Amino acid sequence: MRIVKLTETEKAGILENLLKRSPNQYGKFEATVNEILENVKKNKDKALFEYTKKFDGVDITTKTFRVTKEEIKEAYTKVDEHLIEVIRKAIVNIKAYHEKQVRYSWFDSKPDGTLLGQKITALERVGVYVPGGKAVYPSSVLMNIIPAKVAGVDRIVMTTPPGKDGKVYPITLVAANEAGVDEVYKVGGAQAIGALAYGTESIKKVDKIVGPGNIFVALAKKAVYGHVSIDSIAGPSEILVLADETANPRYVAADLLSQAEHDEMASAILVTTSEELAKKVSDEVDGFVKVLSRSEIIQKSLDAYGYILVAKDMEEAIDTANEIASEHLEIVTKNPFDTMTRIRNAGAIFLGEYSSEPLGDYFAGPNHVLPTNGTAKFFSPLSVDDFIKKSSIISYSREALELIHQDIEDFATAEKLTAHANSIAVRFEK
Amino acid sequence: MRIVKLTETEKAGILENLLKRSPNQYGKFEATVNEILENVKKNKDKALFEYTKKFDGVDITTKTFRVTKEEIKEAYTKVDEHLIEVIRKAIVNIKAYHEKQVRYSWFDSKPDGTLLGQKITALERVGVYVPGGKAVYPSSVLMNIIPAKVAGVDRIVMTTPPGKDGKVYPITLVAANEAGVDEVYKVGGAQAIGALAYGTESIKKVDKIVGPGNIFVALAKKAVYGHVSIDSIAGPSEILVLADETANPRYVAADLLSQAEHDEMASAILVTTSEELAKKVSDEVDGFVKVLSRSEIIQKSLDAYGYILVAKDMEEAIDTANEIASEHLEIVTKNPFDTMTRIRNAGAIFLGEYSSEPLGDYFAGPNHVLPTNGTAKFFSPLSVDDFIKKSSIISYSREALELIHQDIEDFATAEKLTAHANSIAVRFEK
Repeated sequence: MRIVKLTETEKAGILENLLKRSPNQYGKFEATVNEILENVKKNKDKALFEYTKKFDGVDITTKTFRVTKEEIKEAYTKVDEHLIEVIRKAIVNIKAYHEKQVRYSWFDSKPDGTLLGQKITALERVGVYVPGGKAVYPSSVLMNIIPAKVAGVDRIVMTTPPGKDGKVYPITLVAANEAGVDEVYKVGGAQAIGALAYGTESIKKVDKIVGPGNIFVALAKKAVYGHVSIDSIAGPSEILVLADETANPRYVAADLLSQAEHDEMASAILVTTSEELAKKVSDEVDGFVKVLSRSEIIQKSLDAYGYILVAKDMEEAIDTANEIASEHLEIVTKNPFDTMTRIRNAGAIFLGEYSSEPLGDYFAGPNHVLPTNGTAKFFSPLSVDDFIKKSSIISYSREALELIHQDIEDFATAEKLTAHANSIAVRFEK
Repeated sequence: MRIVKLTETEKAGILENLLKRSPNQYGKFEATVNEILENVKKNKDKALFEYTKKFDGVDITTKTFRVTKEEIKEAYTKVDEHLIEVIRKAIVNIKAYHEKQVRYSWFDSKPDGTLLGQKITALERVGVYVPGGKAVYPSSVLMNIIPAKVAGVDRIVMTTPPGKDGKVYPITLVAANEAGVDEVYKVGGAQAIGALAYGTESIKKVDKIVGPGNIFVALAKKAVYGHVSIDSIAGPSEILVLADETANPRYVAADLLSQAEHDEMASAILVTTSEELAKKVSDEVDGFVKVLSRSEIIQKSLDAYGYILVAKDMEEAIDTANEIASEHLEIVTKNPFDTMTRIRNAGAIFLGEYSSEPLGDYFAGPNHVLPTNGTAKFFSPLSVDDFIKKSSIISYSREALELIHQDIEDFATAEKLTAHANSIAVRFEK
């Protein structure tokens, strides 16, 4: 891996390079996606089945569209029992963490008869998109469904493209069923997003769509935003390890590669105050790359977006981490909790040498759907908050309104909104 | 006002009519907006000053661009002292309400050395857009700045187009200063959004942009979303009054008109179980329209999007309110709190006959930036939550990781991510 001495110029160049991976550059497919969405809006199920025939090579009918209880049962027979056990253990942890995010409606009342509050209501219907294709990620199914379930969403509707055999990949079905999905439909791509956003004969419109997907799915989600809510559009995965001389180079190297293997656009960065660590990590990376099964992807990702950055002191290292605002941040320093207090921007923060990033991907409990590409400066991990919405509550007595009615009328009059002023005045007219 | 007996067909037609007001229909100005944004990105301040000359007819220079302390002082001399007092009283209430929304970072630890948590961090820089033009809304300035301030945002940066005299409207400056703004710049339109999103020589890039604006501003916000965060794009204002025979028709009529006066696209709807109330409200509306100063706007808005809907029972009335998911919902029934428990979708809920909607616009404390056009099904009022972001915290001891390391490796292997498995395995190699 390349080792770079941190300077302002270097940093600016690296930040610019990382931004090239932004998911905001898909313009050229927009027309295709809009056409698919319009067709689904108009022709509903019929359009879905045609696209599934065309893109997935499978004939789906109204009868075979929704996954049946029997298909779910069958899926269980095809998944390794030990893996089901691991999934169940992960679910316990993921649920426990997300249950701590649950918020309550609150109110505050005063003896003059005023009550103000905030009502929390779960979304009614949520759509979860699960990609098909080669890579099957049951962990992603869990991470998208469980927070919705914990929030109290009435119906969780999953869509995923069927395989050539017209079935959903067994492990996907098992994970979805264990997490508590309510409905599963065999449709993928932009057409699935259209179905969830507008509704068809078989699929009722949802309030929000979450889950990862290819560029067509991402563009479709962006297009229907406002009509329904969506989660943020995820970019390629990232890890930044912030380490001093106390870090174990072998662990750091292994953790960098765990993200580099995701895809060629993934980014793995070490920021360290120790030149010695920098060299050792670079050597360890070279050793691992030789033996790992996805070495080709790893090498490409490291060449394009991998860096070992040597900072002059911890302050500069921390500033750099805050500017990059990585999806995953590992802190491997003498006192990781102290370092953490200085971190402003990161999706998930892993503290100390035994908090390896993949622990968060699968098992610890926090969500692995995280802000990428610098958006940790303003976006948050997927959470129960994404599946609720708030309503303000205002209740005033005559007595309480009377005390302030003139002030409100004056304010409204200053804004030249006389009907606003009138609505208050009419309650105190003689 | 037209009185309509509720049927499924009527309801479907009304819902479709209301959706026509959606802010998602601005396509034709997109190219213009993108051109402005590109120009600002490239030419920074120079582009801003050129657009201000062109659109606002004012010569702004680097020296006069940022509002000075002297200009703020001068603004105070031009605003009615009583109005400043009213603004200060409103700020006390708005702050008190939003302070109740503040959330804390939390963690949960176990004796085996695991710690999981959620860290709350305020956004660093927030941009608040304030429209210029004829309508001056100091209340909007307060509602956008105060939650950011309460959240702990470091720098709140306001932009607003200057008047012909090269100055910012005094009441806007006074409201912004009282609410705690840090920087104010004289620039409006899509160019202001570009400046906030990309940064210029004078304005440093922000993390999030909030505040209302015309279609150019709305489109620009949509275009920069992802690069920075934005609040939701607001559509025209709405009120829905849910009333039974106990409601006072004069109050209901006045409240309906308080929203109808906003603009010709505003919507005012009464849903009631009482035919008698329906008729009386219609008469009262006719009476008020004759005497109110904005009667022309009101009449147009009522003709296009105003309805008095008569439901066969309260259940049907509540279902309709939930389907419309109004920005403002007034409940004027025998037992408004009981009715409120049955409400699923609304931006702000006003209970009882003294909780008139304008009370929430100015004074009570809850935010008046609310989800419109049915989006209360999944969006929330502007709140402190909009100005913070979360990071997950994960800290595991060797002991704790050892207990589960095999499970994680198995999960990673099932997903064919061997570098993920390796990063855990390497910590327990002999």
